Amino acid sequence: MTDTEKTGLSRRQLLLATGAAVVAGGSAQAMPSSDVPAWDEQVDVLVAGSGAAGTCAALEAKRAGARVLMTESLAVPGGSSGLSGGVVYAGGGTALQRALGVEDTPEAMYDYLLRTGSPGSPRDKIQLYCEQSPEHFAWLVAQGVPYTDKFTPGKGLPMGDESLYFSGSEQAWPARELAVPAPRGHVPGVAGINGGRTLMAALHKQVRDAGVPLRTRVAVRQLVVESDGRVSGALLESEGGQRFVRARRGVVLACGGFIHNRAMLEQHAPELARCSVPWGGAGDQGQGINMGVAVGASSVRMHEGFAVAPIYPPEQSISGILINSSGQRFIGEDVYHAVIGHAIAFQQQGRAWLITDEQSAYKGVQDNFPLAAQSNSIGGIAEQLSLPKGALQNTVAYYNRHAGNGEDPVFGKAGQYLRPLQGPPYKAWDISVERAFFPAHTLGGLATTVNGNVLNSFGEQIPGLYAAGRTSAGVPTAPYIASGLSLGDATFFGRRAGRAVAGAA
Amino acid sequence: MTDTEKTGLSRRQLLLATGAAVVAGGSAQAMPSSDVPAWDEQVDVLVAGSGAAGTCAALEAKRAGARVLMTESLAVPGGSSGLSGGVVYAGGGTALQRALGVEDTPEAMYDYLLRTGSPGSPRDKIQLYCEQSPEHFAWLVAQGVPYTDKFTPGKGLPMGDESLYFSGSEQAWPARELAVPAPRGHVPGVAGINGGRTLMAALHKQVRDAGVPLRTRVAVRQLVVESDGRVSGALLESEGGQRFVRARRGVVLACGGFIHNRAMLEQHAPELARCSVPWGGAGDQGQGINMGVAVGASSVRMHEGFAVAPIYPPEQSISGILINSSGQRFIGEDVYHAVIGHAIAFQQQGRAWLITDEQSAYKGVQDNFPLAAQSNSIGGIAEQLSLPKGALQNTVAYYNRHAGNGEDPVFGKAGQYLRPLQGPPYKAWDISVERAFFPAHTLGGLATTVNGNVLNSFGEQIPGLYAAGRTSAGVPTAPYIASGLSLGDATFFGRRAGRAVAGAA
Repeated sequence: MTDTEKTGLSRRQLLLATGAAVVAGGSAQAMPSSDVPAWDEQVDVLVAGSGAAGTCAALEAKRAGARVLMTESLAVPGGSSGLSGGVVYAGGGTALQRALGVEDTPEAMYDYLLRTGSPGSPRDKIQLYCEQSPEHFAWLVAQGVPYTDKFTPGKGLPMGDESLYFSGSEQAWPARELAVPAPRGHVPGVAGINGGRTLMAALHKQVRDAGVPLRTRVAVRQLVVESDGRVSGALLESEGGQRFVRARRGVVLACGGFIHNRAMLEQHAPELARCSVPWGGAGDQGQGINMGVAVGASSVRMHEGFAVAPIYPPEQSISGILINSSGQRFIGEDVYHAVIGHAIAFQQQGRAWLITDEQSAYKGVQDNFPLAAQSNSIGGIAEQLSLPKGALQNTVAYYNRHAGNGEDPVFGKAGQYLRPLQGPPYKAWDISVERAFFPAHTLGGLATTVNGNVLNSFGEQIPGLYAAGRTSAGVPTAPYIASGLSLGDATFFGRRAGRAVAGAA
Repeated sequence: MTDTEKTGLSRRQLLLATGAAVVAGGSAQAMPSSDVPAWDEQVDVLVAGSGAAGTCAALEAKRAGARVLMTESLAVPGGSSGLSGGVVYAGGGTALQRALGVEDTPEAMYDYLLRTGSPGSPRDKIQLYCEQSPEHFAWLVAQGVPYTDKFTPGKGLPMGDESLYFSGSEQAWPARELAVPAPRGHVPGVAGINGGRTLMAALHKQVRDAGVPLRTRVAVRQLVVESDGRVSGALLESEGGQRFVRARRGVVLACGGFIHNRAMLEQHAPELARCSVPWGGAGDQGQGINMGVAVGASSVRMHEGFAVAPIYPPEQSISGILINSSGQRFIGEDVYHAVIGHAIAFQQQGRAWLITDEQSAYKGVQDNFPLAAQSNSIGGIAEQLSLPKGALQNTVAYYNRHAGNGEDPVFGKAGQYLRPLQGPPYKAWDISVERAFFPAHTLGGLATTVNGNVLNSFGEQIPGLYAAGRTSAGVPTAPYIASGLSLGDATFFGRRAGRAVAGAA
């Protein structure tokens, strides 16, 4: 799931919308092919998962001449991608950017991703992703994903039919000094939060038209390995029973992340486990990652995820200030809200408050954030929050002094959001990971090459095994610096994995 | 390596002291037993690594009746443990604590580890570790490790022959409010930084006396697996060639962490890769972890490590203040210096300064920290460091106001370190991970049970495979909250792995 906007759906609604899984999870170590009684079916390529990554992989493998089978453990295909806002982070001069007169280069895009992202960002993947982004966007258009030649300057996912917006922190400090900003959030031109559904509908139509069978309520349970380590097939499970499927050219694991596998989440990403809303389709059980590890794959950046503190929309809230339990500001309030979420979840022990005055008061459609304190004075707020004495007063005095001059010397918040906090009542909104609406998703996964080949711990390719999307560790790292990076990565590298596995006869 | 004090040895000296490895690293996927031409040798238990974990495992396995072979890839045995300060974190009422009239309980120790440690701390391991800590310390004494009935109140590793000190943040805020403080750093009673050598000399003597062969300059290169997944032996490599050793009861991987495997470090722990001093024996190449992953083991918390900002000794520096690039304080200066290091490396983008006045000026034996600025005014310091305007002045004014009253409302620094910064020249010392003396070591490793059984990604035990010490993910997590946790974990769980593998016939 790449999009991090609030859908208004509850966790239960999300699960219902996705459909129940055949089996919630659990499996075992890989199976030696000598233990396979007989192959029930033979294909060239088996793709596990029908989200953006799996669908793109299946499509490209099929078009390259392979006989492909795609499976989905849930009743409804599409995975987290289908539930998302459908944003693809693209740039470097896409057709849509050019149509709107937006200047962008692969270098500026690369600078943004590398210079403001994690020190663990995969340079090889990011470079390819930026260089080929215009081509990739053209491919999405060619698949029938509808985009409009409309731009919106707003910070959130467009609620109208606009298709281009700033989906990250490109215009916020320090990003704006490190990379030439450009809007790169490409979203299907449909009103409401229907981008993911629209994107996946187009891709699934292509898969159907191409003649790739998609079997829902069928889970890939166990990989089958030859004695030389090659992955040669898998055990599939459905209500109808178990089947051994031989995959002559290889298996593509595109089963999503593991936000809904509680034990796995506690073990690998305890900070994400504390976040109030596991954000993703019900199929995100870590099954693909675990099956890969079972055959010797290396898993990387398993603690990373995106965690979102959606203080905007509405944008007026950005004129408030975010403080930690020391009563200090710790980030510019105008950065992308997953960057804010990461700071809270991973660097502030999960606790923060948004302090607003009358003008900046948070007015959410729903109550994303509990009201933690209200007072006619900052001191009153500080007391109600039990902050260190004088600390918040000190923070606000310093902030106000400079905001009055249109400056934020510490975090460089942009001028349009800068004005002194004044005009009670002051309010403190609880933005803690446990009590706020705080969606989280995982980003760690299997180590792969730029062609989706899964790697073992010695950097060698595991023959016959590919992964894409959130089953792999890809372009998105933590902090997650823009909506659309996960879906962008899933579609782009899903395609590459599909081409690679088809050619790997 | 559990100890985080500066030894005064350069990186080159450390490597020379340890001896060159047979082969620096590199290997391949596991080998099916059907590919083994013939076993050159048969034992019950093969232990890879001669540090604290491996030595304790070998000893207990031997005493439980197993035929054991221990190997060491370097010329000199002892691993990182032998180079360390030799601190074992123990408590709950050890003989030494009781002899010195120190009150402690397993509950207080558990509270400290759980409440001030990472949310990902392994409860099952920590509980056992605390409950059995008095017994474990008695065992160390019984092995001939020399301790003196002497306590030192100082914060650093004792330079005299004292054997007990506060090796963590037990007395600092907030720990002192979350757990009853007690000194738990147990260190061999020898002057200088010879604790690790002393500890390992005693343990190696026991191993020799017990008749366990220890072969140095022999590296375990590849695990051998049966078709059912059981680990049944390994390929050993030395200058003399390769040998296949069958291990009837199992293999114990105790090969340390991966701080010296640059590619692995960049991939899994980029924040640690930036730290200036890879801190550990030359054998810490990740070989054990990688061999485990190659047979389907799950690796956990691979990004975690300890990273040390040794602002003390000398203790007067603690009266200075630590600031980040926003010109704000971010931590109490009297917490354990690996907690400070973690905050800088993982939460402050690797950058921080220690600001001192004349009285608190850092006076290191060597230049741990470059002098970044010097001025007769705080404003001058701020300007030289290019800090946001007025931010440092604001921070110092707030700090001084409260320090004058013996208070630190924000970070609760203890009274003895609290006084206003005054009396120029003011100085700023660069505590950035890249430019300061900033030792780092890895803490992530293979998932194991409390008995050292290595687990796959589905939580199942891999038959015949055990791990201990920093090849496993154990009690120490990040932030590393006390000296002695790694060595304590290595000895305690090394013993348990040894007993388990011996009984696993």
